[in-house]
Amino acid sequence: MKAAVFLLLALMMPARHTDAQCNIDSMVDLKVQAAVSSILSATLAKAKLLCQDVSARGALVSCPAGYKPTGCACGMGCGSWDIHTDSTCHCQCAGIDWTAARCCKIGLE
Amino acid sequence: MKAAVFLLLALMMPARHTDAQCNIDSMVDLKVQAAVSSILSATLAKAKLLCQDVSARGALVSCPAGYKPTGCACGMGCGSWDIHTDSTCHCQCAGIDWTAARCCKIGLE
Amino acid sequence: MKAAVFLLLALMMPARHTDAQCNIDSMVDLKVQAAVSSILSATLAKAKLLCQDVSARGALVSCPAGYKPTGCACGMGCGSWDIHTDSTCHCQCAGIDWTAARCCKIGLE
Repeated sequence: MKAAVFLLLALMMPARHTDAQCNIDSMVDLKVQAAVSSILSATLAKAKLLCQDVSARGALVSCPAGYKPTGCACGMGCGSWDIHTDSTCHCQCAGIDWTAARCCKIGLE
Repeated sequence: MKAAVFLLLALMMPARHTDAQCNIDSMVDLKVQAAVSSILSATLAKAKLLCQDVSARGALVSCPAGYKPTGCACGMGCGSWDIHTDSTCHCQCAGIDWTAARCCKIGLE
Repeated sequence: MKAAVFLLLALMMPARHTDAQCNIDSMVDLKVQAAVSSILSATLAKAKLLCQDVSARGALVSCPAGYKPTGCACGMGCGSWDIHTDSTCHCQCAGIDWTAARCCKIGLE
């Protein structure tokens, strides 16, 4: 009798173990794929270009921290500008009265 | 005999249970990490800045829905502009003949 | 006795199986959510607008591969420009001496 129970256990256990592994494997795969896809698409759908304008008297104006200038505007009709240290709009025309920066960043809305 | 089987089961089960838990734990960790990393990098690699130009007669032009102006251009050589309500380029020089907006958004290519 | 052991096994296993499934289910859910959330927020926090300026003599300048022009600047104070093939700044004023492009892309910093 004792031997029969051992044999029974020995025969049952590997089979159950393998089945359980397959089920868990598939379940984990499905759960991971579903969770990743849904959270990713929801998050990326919320990723927006956030922009604001800043302007100041004179020939220089800087974007707020975290924002980058994507373009600059100048007083006196001037269209000659450059960007200093990736953060500051500089209008080049002599005696410029005001400078504006269009400042953008990637954010979640 | 009955007692022997109970003892046998009692001794076997916790050990098997613990081993199985460790294996499943590790397997889940590996699967999650692999899936998240690969889907994330593939998705982010496809995240692009999508841009288009729009222009119109007069001093005002708006970006299409979902796009933000990142810079403006004006007729008559004018470089003085500002952006209204985060969506419309406005050229400031008197009697301006055309206005253009560079309009961008984040998209998946 | 044999029947008693079978009955015992039959009674025990489904219960253990169900408990284990619940535990694994919950564990996988928790692990997936935690991993996805933490990796996603870390990755998106690193998603930045990367920009650079390029300039050249004459009326045309192109952005490096992968970058898009978000605005253009021109010599001679000129603010009239347009963008060719989504990649090249073109200054329109006659006899323009230099053209600059503000070029941006989405990148991981």
